[in-house]
Amino acid sequence: MQYHASVNQHAQPIVKKIIANADALRVVIETLANGSTLIDAGINAPGGLEVGRLITEICLGGLGSVSLSHSTYTEQWPLTVNVHTSNPVLACLGSQYAGWSLAHEKYYALGSGPARAMATKTKEGVTQPVEELYTELAYHDEGDETVLVIENDKVPPLAIVEKVAAACGVSGDKLTIIVTPTSSLAGCVQVVGRVLEVAMHKAHALHFALDNIIDGCGSAPICPPHPDFVQAMGRTNDAILFAGLVHLFVKGSDADAEQLANQLPSSTSKDYGKPFAKVFKEYQYDFFKIDPMLFSPASVIVTAVESGKSFRAGRLDNALLNLSFGA
Amino acid sequence: MQYHASVNQHAQPIVKKIIANADALRVVIETLANGSTLIDAGINAPGGLEVGRLITEICLGGLGSVSLSHSTYTEQWPLTVNVHTSNPVLACLGSQYAGWSLAHEKYYALGSGPARAMATKTKEGVTQPVEELYTELAYHDEGDETVLVIENDKVPPLAIVEKVAAACGVSGDKLTIIVTPTSSLAGCVQVVGRVLEVAMHKAHALHFALDNIIDGCGSAPICPPHPDFVQAMGRTNDAILFAGLVHLFVKGSDADAEQLANQLPSSTSKDYGKPFAKVFKEYQYDFFKIDPMLFSPASVIVTAVESGKSFRAGRLDNALLNLSFGA
Amino acid sequence: MQYHASVNQHAQPIVKKIIANADALRVVIETLANGSTLIDAGINAPGGLEVGRLITEICLGGLGSVSLSHSTYTEQWPLTVNVHTSNPVLACLGSQYAGWSLAHEKYYALGSGPARAMATKTKEGVTQPVEELYTELAYHDEGDETVLVIENDKVPPLAIVEKVAAACGVSGDKLTIIVTPTSSLAGCVQVVGRVLEVAMHKAHALHFALDNIIDGCGSAPICPPHPDFVQAMGRTNDAILFAGLVHLFVKGSDADAEQLANQLPSSTSKDYGKPFAKVFKEYQYDFFKIDPMLFSPASVIVTAVESGKSFRAGRLDNALLNLSFGA
Repeated sequence: MQYHASVNQHAQPIVKKIIANADALRVVIETLANGSTLIDAGINAPGGLEVGRLITEICLGGLGSVSLSHSTYTEQWPLTVNVHTSNPVLACLGSQYAGWSLAHEKYYALGSGPARAMATKTKEGVTQPVEELYTELAYHDEGDETVLVIENDKVPPLAIVEKVAAACGVSGDKLTIIVTPTSSLAGCVQVVGRVLEVAMHKAHALHFALDNIIDGCGSAPICPPHPDFVQAMGRTNDAILFAGLVHLFVKGSDADAEQLANQLPSSTSKDYGKPFAKVFKEYQYDFFKIDPMLFSPASVIVTAVESGKSFRAGRLDNALLNLSFGA
Repeated sequence: MQYHASVNQHAQPIVKKIIANADALRVVIETLANGSTLIDAGINAPGGLEVGRLITEICLGGLGSVSLSHSTYTEQWPLTVNVHTSNPVLACLGSQYAGWSLAHEKYYALGSGPARAMATKTKEGVTQPVEELYTELAYHDEGDETVLVIENDKVPPLAIVEKVAAACGVSGDKLTIIVTPTSSLAGCVQVVGRVLEVAMHKAHALHFALDNIIDGCGSAPICPPHPDFVQAMGRTNDAILFAGLVHLFVKGSDADAEQLANQLPSSTSKDYGKPFAKVFKEYQYDFFKIDPMLFSPASVIVTAVESGKSFRAGRLDNALLNLSFGA
Repeated sequence: MQYHASVNQHAQPIVKKIIANADALRVVIETLANGSTLIDAGINAPGGLEVGRLITEICLGGLGSVSLSHSTYTEQWPLTVNVHTSNPVLACLGSQYAGWSLAHEKYYALGSGPARAMATKTKEGVTQPVEELYTELAYHDEGDETVLVIENDKVPPLAIVEKVAAACGVSGDKLTIIVTPTSSLAGCVQVVGRVLEVAMHKAHALHFALDNIIDGCGSAPICPPHPDFVQAMGRTNDAILFAGLVHLFVKGSDADAEQLANQLPSSTSKDYGKPFAKVFKEYQYDFFKIDPMLFSPASVIVTAVESGKSFRAGRLDNALLNLSFGA
């Protein structure tokens, strides 16, 4: 990791900004029993698109920029989230990816954001990252304060908050937990704002050399929130699967760049072709039966900077998007 | 008003930013005889699009974001203003709406922005908001400093400035007055930047429960300024009436959301169908004869967050837009 | 120059921001032998699109805003740079234009950005600007610190850095040099980000009264970088020549505005019609044989603010753009 940047250091000013503007952003700030700060962005607080935008920037470890705009890209859904980072590996995989499984009794959630990069566990006397991915990335972050984003409709139990702080090596009062329900506006933005991250994650699954991905940007329409969890999650995925657009800049050979472009789009998956909620139902709501290659943007451009050639594959699918979003 | 946010507190940093960058923004800053600060953004100063953008954010009480972009939405007018706020009621009605009538001798103007929320009058011993709207909104703001935006081609007489300070309960030196002529570039941006506000105002006129509107965004092409006041005002209105696009997120029933969508667009008005300057002329320049339902965006999407359904009505009208803007 | 603004003063905070975020922006910061700061944004450092965006804002003397977005304007190239300034003369000609010829032994480069406005030379006892353009602009800037942007794939020799500091009247440690190779991502952004500047420069060459240009914005697709210098430079030019869009707001007569619109587009040049690299080759790589009128945006709108009329000419050429960018 030649250009080390601390995702925690770069994310903290955005955390502080949300806390300082809690009234305007309509979030509730609480101090938990262990001293940790809870930012409720959609459970007992309305939250909204803007705090969702800022949370997405926190998820990116402060290494990316996220903006909302009106776009003519899709036929019916102008509201769009745009994501850009010149550090796609660190920002998306080293921070934004929801890779930290957190379970306690009946509570289960995935953690996302900068705290992941600080989290270690000790096993047979050896301290190692909580997530194996960090060994591959050769990235570990340290900091005085950290933040974890949880996509859930419940505040995590204290046992989980304490576990996160302990794994990150900080006292409880140095940890901020941000919770966004999938069916909230903030939740929609922060999940659809993973459009670039899912491309990075699939590139990783396809064994593309991550260090060769040097820059990237993505955009996708923000889905209308849905009160039902499965429908809500389905729409956030479909925003990316049917209308996500990603442009990656990569080093390495043209053959590798072209293959990446051809393999990346969601339409290459055998499970492509219907709204995600339907796919999920057909697999009896067993997430792990779904083809992992489904999770990717609809359309990609991969530019090979060593030759100057660009490769493109996939396409926007307005019909499926409308079916999912409820035109 | 469950999530109180002070429109004055959030707007002041933007006021300070304009003053600190007066040279770059090409505005003239003056201190009036009563100690108030005047920001001239288009009378004896060129001003420009960027200061118009910042003034629009001040109008929104610092609770929204305004950006300029090039868009392909209309056929001929790429330059676009985008407005977003997760506090549409407070930002648009509690601050941005030009609801404060200010008259002194021959001078007449409408005041807009954060000062409105602080302004009270005492009538028969009872202190109440200057504008009845604030009683309905159950919103009153207080602050050490305040700012009022006036769309006019003349600096207001001192009597008006003193009246504003007195109504807001601040000494003269704690008041900033910003003046933007309708025919200036800054004026065009700050009036077209009302695209979301006119939707909010019409929703209010249609008796939609305001607290149910939880988020919103809008965009419209920035009109080319016109030296004639009526033509200039006509174009700023037409930008919204013929090409304004608004997306509201609302709580409540689908029936209410659908009805709001159907009633909102400008094309539902009996006065729709010609450039605003022509409508105005046909009513002998009597503003109050114009159907108040005319003032609304061309096209709207209303998403009912409790069902996940989206309702849309209205449409962009390039032909009328070109007629108004002078293609 | 009625509204003097210091391009150096307004640019310095952006320089400081890059230095403070060098890790995130993946640039290398070095101190040269004479104490000057070097920001390497693409030679021995990856750099990226985001630092290119910030460098473009530095080039504009801190008087403009630059954003990246996904746009549907072209058929194939969504990634777009948007430039806006309410000070087009100072920002584009007084700072961004690459007008300072710097040569030492075999090294040759053009300098761009705020330092140009501070640079003077003494000839026959008379101190005058290094570039004649500043006499025409009647603009000279002073400051404690300055910054120069150099588009090159080599760090300039110390003799050049010392010459720049001396011409600007600052000690070596008060000068920052930013280097962006043409074939780097940062280089692509900062050159394509000249879309408005080339329009301003051509307006100047056409003898349009510069003081009459009061506001302007531009956009163009960011080209995929190319490892070959001529191809890379060709693409940065073609982004503007085939797909650059500029909207200028001007004072003065309709006749002058209309003539400006008609003469501005690249397609008015006799050398228009093929990728720039090919034109360059056909002239045996002699830059000065190319029609200077070629360097301009594909499409322009000129709004005459004194009449309210808008004039437009030129058009986007997707076929030529694809030919250049390698679809």
